[in-house]
Amino acid sequence: MPDYEFLSYSVTDRVATLLLDRPDKLNAFTHAMGVELVDVMDRIDADDDVRAVVVTGAGRAFCAGADLSDGTAIFENKNPGEFRMERDADYGGIVTRRFFESTKPLIAAINGPAVGMGATITLPMDIRLASDTAKIGFVFSRRGLVPEAASSFFLTRVVGISQAAEWVYSGRVFGADEALSAGLVKSVHAPEDLLPRAYELAHELIDASSAVSVAVSRRMLWQMLAFGTPELAHELDSRGIFHLGRADDVKEGVLSFLEKRPAEFPMRVSTDLPQYVRDWQRLGSTEALIAYERSQLAPEGV
Amino acid sequence: MPDYEFLSYSVTDRVATLLLDRPDKLNAFTHAMGVELVDVMDRIDADDDVRAVVVTGAGRAFCAGADLSDGTAIFENKNPGEFRMERDADYGGIVTRRFFESTKPLIAAINGPAVGMGATITLPMDIRLASDTAKIGFVFSRRGLVPEAASSFFLTRVVGISQAAEWVYSGRVFGADEALSAGLVKSVHAPEDLLPRAYELAHELIDASSAVSVAVSRRMLWQMLAFGTPELAHELDSRGIFHLGRADDVKEGVLSFLEKRPAEFPMRVSTDLPQYVRDWQRLGSTEALIAYERSQLAPEGV
Amino acid sequence: MPDYEFLSYSVTDRVATLLLDRPDKLNAFTHAMGVELVDVMDRIDADDDVRAVVVTGAGRAFCAGADLSDGTAIFENKNPGEFRMERDADYGGIVTRRFFESTKPLIAAINGPAVGMGATITLPMDIRLASDTAKIGFVFSRRGLVPEAASSFFLTRVVGISQAAEWVYSGRVFGADEALSAGLVKSVHAPEDLLPRAYELAHELIDASSAVSVAVSRRMLWQMLAFGTPELAHELDSRGIFHLGRADDVKEGVLSFLEKRPAEFPMRVSTDLPQYVRDWQRLGSTEALIAYERSQLAPEGV
Repeated sequence: MPDYEFLSYSVTDRVATLLLDRPDKLNAFTHAMGVELVDVMDRIDADDDVRAVVVTGAGRAFCAGADLSDGTAIFENKNPGEFRMERDADYGGIVTRRFFESTKPLIAAINGPAVGMGATITLPMDIRLASDTAKIGFVFSRRGLVPEAASSFFLTRVVGISQAAEWVYSGRVFGADEALSAGLVKSVHAPEDLLPRAYELAHELIDASSAVSVAVSRRMLWQMLAFGTPELAHELDSRGIFHLGRADDVKEGVLSFLEKRPAEFPMRVSTDLPQYVRDWQRLGSTEALIAYERSQLAPEGV
Repeated sequence: MPDYEFLSYSVTDRVATLLLDRPDKLNAFTHAMGVELVDVMDRIDADDDVRAVVVTGAGRAFCAGADLSDGTAIFENKNPGEFRMERDADYGGIVTRRFFESTKPLIAAINGPAVGMGATITLPMDIRLASDTAKIGFVFSRRGLVPEAASSFFLTRVVGISQAAEWVYSGRVFGADEALSAGLVKSVHAPEDLLPRAYELAHELIDASSAVSVAVSRRMLWQMLAFGTPELAHELDSRGIFHLGRADDVKEGVLSFLEKRPAEFPMRVSTDLPQYVRDWQRLGSTEALIAYERSQLAPEGV
Repeated sequence: MPDYEFLSYSVTDRVATLLLDRPDKLNAFTHAMGVELVDVMDRIDADDDVRAVVVTGAGRAFCAGADLSDGTAIFENKNPGEFRMERDADYGGIVTRRFFESTKPLIAAINGPAVGMGATITLPMDIRLASDTAKIGFVFSRRGLVPEAASSFFLTRVVGISQAAEWVYSGRVFGADEALSAGLVKSVHAPEDLLPRAYELAHELIDASSAVSVAVSRRMLWQMLAFGTPELAHELDSRGIFHLGRADDVKEGVLSFLEKRPAEFPMRVSTDLPQYVRDWQRLGSTEALIAYERSQLAPEGV
């Protein structure tokens, strides 16, 4: 692994720990940290020794949001002329869309303040756990901004429109208990119990399951969140069964079940994802999805 | 009614009981059972003496999932060449999409183990109840497979992305209490109370309501789940009021309300659905929906 | 403000109270009341002295639904020939789509019976509070009708498909506690505490936040509810940061934060919304959105 400037990274027993690591700045987000986050996700997806990822913060904070060391500089786009997405994309959204595309489960262990980008960065992760010292806020309206990192999409789906509206309009910072009752986090823990529970949960997700199954399933579930119909789901799972139903993992999965023993799945994410899942990387936009669906669906499906 | 091999079917007081009936195999799903399920749904939709359906399992299980009597044979597609949806569609998805299109309310009474296809088959039903002996699992990752029967679509909408992710990645089997707290089931009952509660609930849904109203409403609600915008909902309900507002059921509905007496609705699903609802059968795919919306929406709607 | 016939309207300390005001008819909805509701929303959006709106009913009811004084007349469309959306649109949907497009937070204070249109009118509001005297019902099936006012869209998203199905098929009227446990309302109050809590909540939403931020955020969140993908959210928030990150509100928002003092945001909704937000008014339909996305997204976004 390369030596990151703003992240630390380690792997124990197939679970990676991804540490936002600028504790003197409460792990505040910068463009450079974002570039490192995208890079580390590429490495995680390519590394079969990693089955799941726990994301947490160094020191007492999870992430204090965009770095305001230079005042509003981080928000000021000096580019001239009209907005152009290929030039002016919010970097937070590039990071969260990269998390969205992960083939490995992501668990956020929110160990302290998680504010602004520090909160929205966790939304495309599969499960969030919090320490009872966590403070969370979607504070954009108090800074004169709008929700970033595609959080308008994710937050409405994770907690519903009413709770999202209340948090986003007010910009209010709230505690772990409120996050729990709203369904933003799965559970709340004493600080010393947070990481142990995150690792335990990671192993619940991976220990008995096929890595390839989890990778394809993750893409399917998040795709359905982003844009899904019963027809598209049906087409994607039919493809999954077509390709995986004859593959080695299902032989081992069924045999081990019938023999009442733990499975030892032979397939690897790095080499054994079906081609349609690799092509999926290009199905990011709604338009591309609809074109894909148009090209694939049988007449009977229409 | 025809004599089914893998189902039993009966009607009492306008509520059908649809029994998955292979108790010696824990009602394991086969292609042949799927064909019968589609057939019985066609008959239910055509039968005005049926207003709602309770689906449950014979014996101690609800449905143990795909029949593994022949090992992985049920998952192995022997067709040569590239995937083709019209040939290679997962049969589970054909069944769940047929449930999705039902004009009658569907209630799952989960009386015991409901695993794999046994769990996903219940997701396009309107309401799930469980016995305290129910065990539920989306176990695909433990078999080397992916969620089938369009469950990646339905499960994310019923319980949210985080809970769906946890259950699908882990493949873990869980009990009725966890299903209840996650919102997968509406309530949990002692085994002897499950079916009585299911029938009671069925009558709450149908006893005071117009069968045609329920049929059109069911198509509207599930359509909005599959693909919906405020504009499309508005157009569909405007059509509903245009056609039904001048029809006999609304006359009786309003008159009975003003006279404070029970309504006796004269209209029948088999003959009195407006034509636009019949045409709806062809609005399955997202592309067809968008084309439909394009053709129907007024300029002011754009 | 004009003198409305069926509404009363007042503003105190930047919070408007919008009163459905036909207490002798339990505030039953008529076409004329709908026209006034659209008019008052136009005025509210244009008035910088209004930051949030509390909607409630005069007298003991919130709104008893469509006015049945003339029996079924309100539902009977006398227009000849085929349905045409531009002529035959349900007026309830015109009202709820106007609420959907509001740039100011909307809070429903459900002070008593809210039935039919009286219930659906609250669904595009951000937050609902209820008095313990509230009675709520989506009673359309008991009148031979279908859910109107685009409620098939909104209700499935606010409470989920299972709860929506149960309420809509049965047409049952239920109390505030059931609304609370289903997530339809945020909290339940004694009658005398309802409006004080609604005003308190309104101030929580607006007192520390930029009016322009809240306006743009509201459009973003509801847009994502109507039709959203991570890509579209990313594009909308990138535009927001591009335009607002160099604007005066963010300078004050960040400076006041660093100086640990309350912010005094200078920008105004009436004059300072970025052009892309004004153009957004035309992004109502799914088709328009997809065309917009196609025209704006960078190649890398596909």
